[in-house]
Amino acid sequence: MNSDWLERLRAGEPRVVARAISAVERGGADARTIITALFRFTGRAHILGVTGAPGTGKSTLVNEIAKHYRRRGHRVGIVAVDPTSPFSGGALLGDRLRMQDLSGDGGVFIRSMATRGSLGGLAAATADAVKVLDAAGFAIVLIETVGAGQNEVDIARNAHTTLVVEAPGMGDDIQAIKAGIMEIADLLIVNKADHDAANATMAALEMNLNLKPKLENDWRPPVLKTIATTGEGVATVVEWIGKHRAYLETNRRLETRERARARAELELVVQRELMARLRRGLNGTRIEALVEQIAARQVDVYTAAEKLLG
Amino acid sequence: MNSDWLERLRAGEPRVVARAISAVERGGADARTIITALFRFTGRAHILGVTGAPGTGKSTLVNEIAKHYRRRGHRVGIVAVDPTSPFSGGALLGDRLRMQDLSGDGGVFIRSMATRGSLGGLAAATADAVKVLDAAGFAIVLIETVGAGQNEVDIARNAHTTLVVEAPGMGDDIQAIKAGIMEIADLLIVNKADHDAANATMAALEMNLNLKPKLENDWRPPVLKTIATTGEGVATVVEWIGKHRAYLETNRRLETRERARARAELELVVQRELMARLRRGLNGTRIEALVEQIAARQVDVYTAAEKLLG
Repeated sequence: MNSDWLERLRAGEPRVVARAISAVERGGADARTIITALFRFTGRAHILGVTGAPGTGKSTLVNEIAKHYRRRGHRVGIVAVDPTSPFSGGALLGDRLRMQDLSGDGGVFIRSMATRGSLGGLAAATADAVKVLDAAGFAIVLIETVGAGQNEVDIARNAHTTLVVEAPGMGDDIQAIKAGIMEIADLLIVNKADHDAANATMAALEMNLNLKPKLENDWRPPVLKTIATTGEGVATVVEWIGKHRAYLETNRRLETRERARARAELELVVQRELMARLRRGLNGTRIEALVEQIAARQVDVYTAAEKLLG
Repeated sequence: MNSDWLERLRAGEPRVVARAISAVERGGADARTIITALFRFTGRAHILGVTGAPGTGKSTLVNEIAKHYRRRGHRVGIVAVDPTSPFSGGALLGDRLRMQDLSGDGGVFIRSMATRGSLGGLAAATADAVKVLDAAGFAIVLIETVGAGQNEVDIARNAHTTLVVEAPGMGDDIQAIKAGIMEIADLLIVNKADHDAANATMAALEMNLNLKPKLENDWRPPVLKTIATTGEGVATVVEWIGKHRAYLETNRRLETRERARARAELELVVQRELMARLRRGLNGTRIEALVEQIAARQVDVYTAAEKLLG
């Protein structure tokens, strides 16, 4: 990149932002140079995590939230974390449709990230992409993830406010409860609220919230209805995002969250760097010999690991 | 555990199996001792991975497959990997219902594993639990996982045969295609096949399979219909599992898969051990100081990691 890339990135030039995100997604020395240069300009964006199972209409909701902020004059970045398998990668049809919906608006930047083969690779790339958008002056950064489990939790650690999206009537039980991602929710949203079962889903979520012991002054996630396809309920969602931001800004909660984010990220980077050093330092033939021995049950994996680490 | 624990475990004594799995789930020195003692008795079980979104009826299908093998006289182990958040853990209602369904049958052993907070922790614990069941003489070990993404891929690496379960009419598109887990499937199953949309779902899966270039002699996943609640189609699924096993046993494919499993596991253990060593070796005060500096944007995470690693 040219020497003036940082200036152009901070001015929000889409091509420079796109190239910087591609570089941090690839990782390595370029990623490091970029993050080292721009980290001091981060910390301004409000970072929103949006998660939910496929079919909940989560992407449509993310688009509507983005449009709402656009009407208020805010620039919006979207990082869609795409659980496409590590074997293929590639953009999904949904993302291409979405690009059409919001494209032509220079105040919106959308990027899909594919799952990486390496543990933690996606979480690190997502965290760095968010930093790029933050430094580029996007006031709102939306991170969208699909699925349930560790990925969502890792990504929630990157967000200031996490929205868990549910759709009524998708199965025999509430997916967020079943998947245990209720605990990362700051806002619970029942999308497709025109569906008959919406009230039952809301009641189940409320009941589940009531089961949890709450400390005084704790945030209680609101359970909100939306119909993303018509935009209904989105204004209320945005209002609650603002309330959550205000909550974080009292009693130094935002600082606590920032420290937790910093700690998680530091651990991730240290872990990956250690593995990279190990791979460089190791003799490939020796690894293959140990793999053969494990497969043949001549040695157990723990003893093999100890042999490698010496 | 008593000195005769290994003998009793190999005889399949449920209490000893349960205690060994609890120990490997906790990790640490006990886990290591157990795996080091029993790894030489592993390699007999056929390991099945079953994955699918919540609401697909995947658990019911797993139960029916287990019952089918039981009728053939095989002992069956089930490891239900539970994506309950790392903040809570605990068994789900569904698992308790399942226990009732299959309990009282000494030939079935069921265990739920909760998501661990640490990267890779769950995959390692699952791999070790499978080894315990394998050494305890369970001919069939079923690993059940929910969700989409890296977790499923990591867990598929532990299985010889992977079943991806889909249900018709759960959203606006096929979840396995959207989530990119088609590539790990050896068998594709459309459960709830009495639903109107079942044929459309099967056709979409077949079409997606046809898009992929296949080498000669490659395995082409069959697309199968089941109604798990009545047991319909389960015999055919079990027949196809047998065909896949026979396929693996030709041309040394099983050995290739075993080596891939060994490599993935070795990498995971080495990575965790490196992190454990780092944590032991590090000065906690120093980490906290760096976390503060990252949160305050005084240092970037990569430079901080380098300072830690020296």
